[in-house]
Amino acid sequence: MVTEVITSKDNARIKNLRKLHKKKERSKAGMFLIDGEHLVEEAVKFSQQIHYIIAEENYSFSINVSNFEVIYVTESVMKTLSQLDTPQGVMAAVSYMPPEVSGNKVLVLDDIQDPGNLGTLIRTADAFGFDRVVMSTETVDPFSDKVLRSAQGSTFHIKLEVTDIHPVIESFNGLSIGTSLRDAEYLEDIPQADEMLVVLGNEGRGVSDAALNYVDRTVKIHMPGNSESLNVAIAGGILMHHFKAE
Amino acid sequence: MVTEVITSKDNARIKNLRKLHKKKERSKAGMFLIDGEHLVEEAVKFSQQIHYIIAEENYSFSINVSNFEVIYVTESVMKTLSQLDTPQGVMAAVSYMPPEVSGNKVLVLDDIQDPGNLGTLIRTADAFGFDRVVMSTETVDPFSDKVLRSAQGSTFHIKLEVTDIHPVIESFNGLSIGTSLRDAEYLEDIPQADEMLVVLGNEGRGVSDAALNYVDRTVKIHMPGNSESLNVAIAGGILMHHFKAE
Repeated sequence: MVTEVITSKDNARIKNLRKLHKKKERSKAGMFLIDGEHLVEEAVKFSQQIHYIIAEENYSFSINVSNFEVIYVTESVMKTLSQLDTPQGVMAAVSYMPPEVSGNKVLVLDDIQDPGNLGTLIRTADAFGFDRVVMSTETVDPFSDKVLRSAQGSTFHIKLEVTDIHPVIESFNGLSIGTSLRDAEYLEDIPQADEMLVVLGNEGRGVSDAALNYVDRTVKIHMPGNSESLNVAIAGGILMHHFKAE
Repeated sequence: MVTEVITSKDNARIKNLRKLHKKKERSKAGMFLIDGEHLVEEAVKFSQQIHYIIAEENYSFSINVSNFEVIYVTESVMKTLSQLDTPQGVMAAVSYMPPEVSGNKVLVLDDIQDPGNLGTLIRTADAFGFDRVVMSTETVDPFSDKVLRSAQGSTFHIKLEVTDIHPVIESFNGLSIGTSLRDAEYLEDIPQADEMLVVLGNEGRGVSDAALNYVDRTVKIHMPGNSESLNVAIAGGILMHHFKAE
């Protein structure tokens, strides 16, 4: 039973939640917003810390939310919180709880800038059993709305870290590879390894020389056609599929 | 030598060019806008029909444009024509001239909706020697700004067609495959063929049953992780890499 519905977009709680649209405020609060039924369900299913669920007054849940605090709002208040063109009527404010993972297959991202690319790479890593994704500090925020949307819930299935990537590559015990167009080996000539770390780079400049210094081998993908390069998410998809977990 | 510079955004030619931001007007005029140095160079290099080049008054060309009509404009007029956040100072109005291609490797797209996905698929097809891309009529317009940008010039390297895809699949002489999650074979179990047609589908529903009726075999990609599906451009990248031209 809905006891109280927030009707004003200027309500203090709503104003505080809306601040989470900004990266700085997400960092400060250690909290981010997720939007839509699928993401809220995945967050619940994969044991994220749910601070509040925000729902439109007439929203009917398909999951059990009795353990959570639900804030009910009007459709017009929801529109000020949601960044979707067509809000789905449910959101949540959550803190990221990385799952326990093997860390045998690691994806390292060196300054990825496009939110769609980052989200798709997280979704693809999850598909192929790359269960740890390490991002450089200049990478676009993985907890921004667009990245979370493209990742389609995979955010909660794998372990995400934002940190200095160089020591991570250097201290990795298995085979580490990075994409490069200079003096690189073709994908088919790189051996399979049980423990594998793949480094992908920025959309404009590729993997930085500083990061390539630490990898065991550099790799390129054979392109018989007229295109000069691949989109980074496509390159990552082909590499992670090739080196996927069993 | 710049003889005349258009200084008003209300200039009749500029107003007519600006209409090309809309799909309907592009169809009517048989013409579209390309934006930025790389796309203009690729259009010239790959013999597209260049109606006008539009350049900021102080723009210095790195290609020979003496055969083309160049319209010079002020920076503020360019800003009304360009859909880039930071216009690069050069655009062109062109008509698409499909190149002669082998058509041995064909990509068929069944209602792709996201401009970034379509552009990336065109770029990826080009990388792997898929030189003909056939799009259903409900596919997002391949000559829209965002699609052209993601395709990074590959638009001019391969043959693009928008048409009813069913007869194209049905009449194809080689092996045709379509992605499906129902009763499909794993990618590794599909034979290589010199002539190959790959069908990919809409972001929400995948390849339609109507289109799947016409393919020889259905294919799926093994995903050992927790993700339920792949982004369509990633699936396309993995398939076209696997079946790439020699």
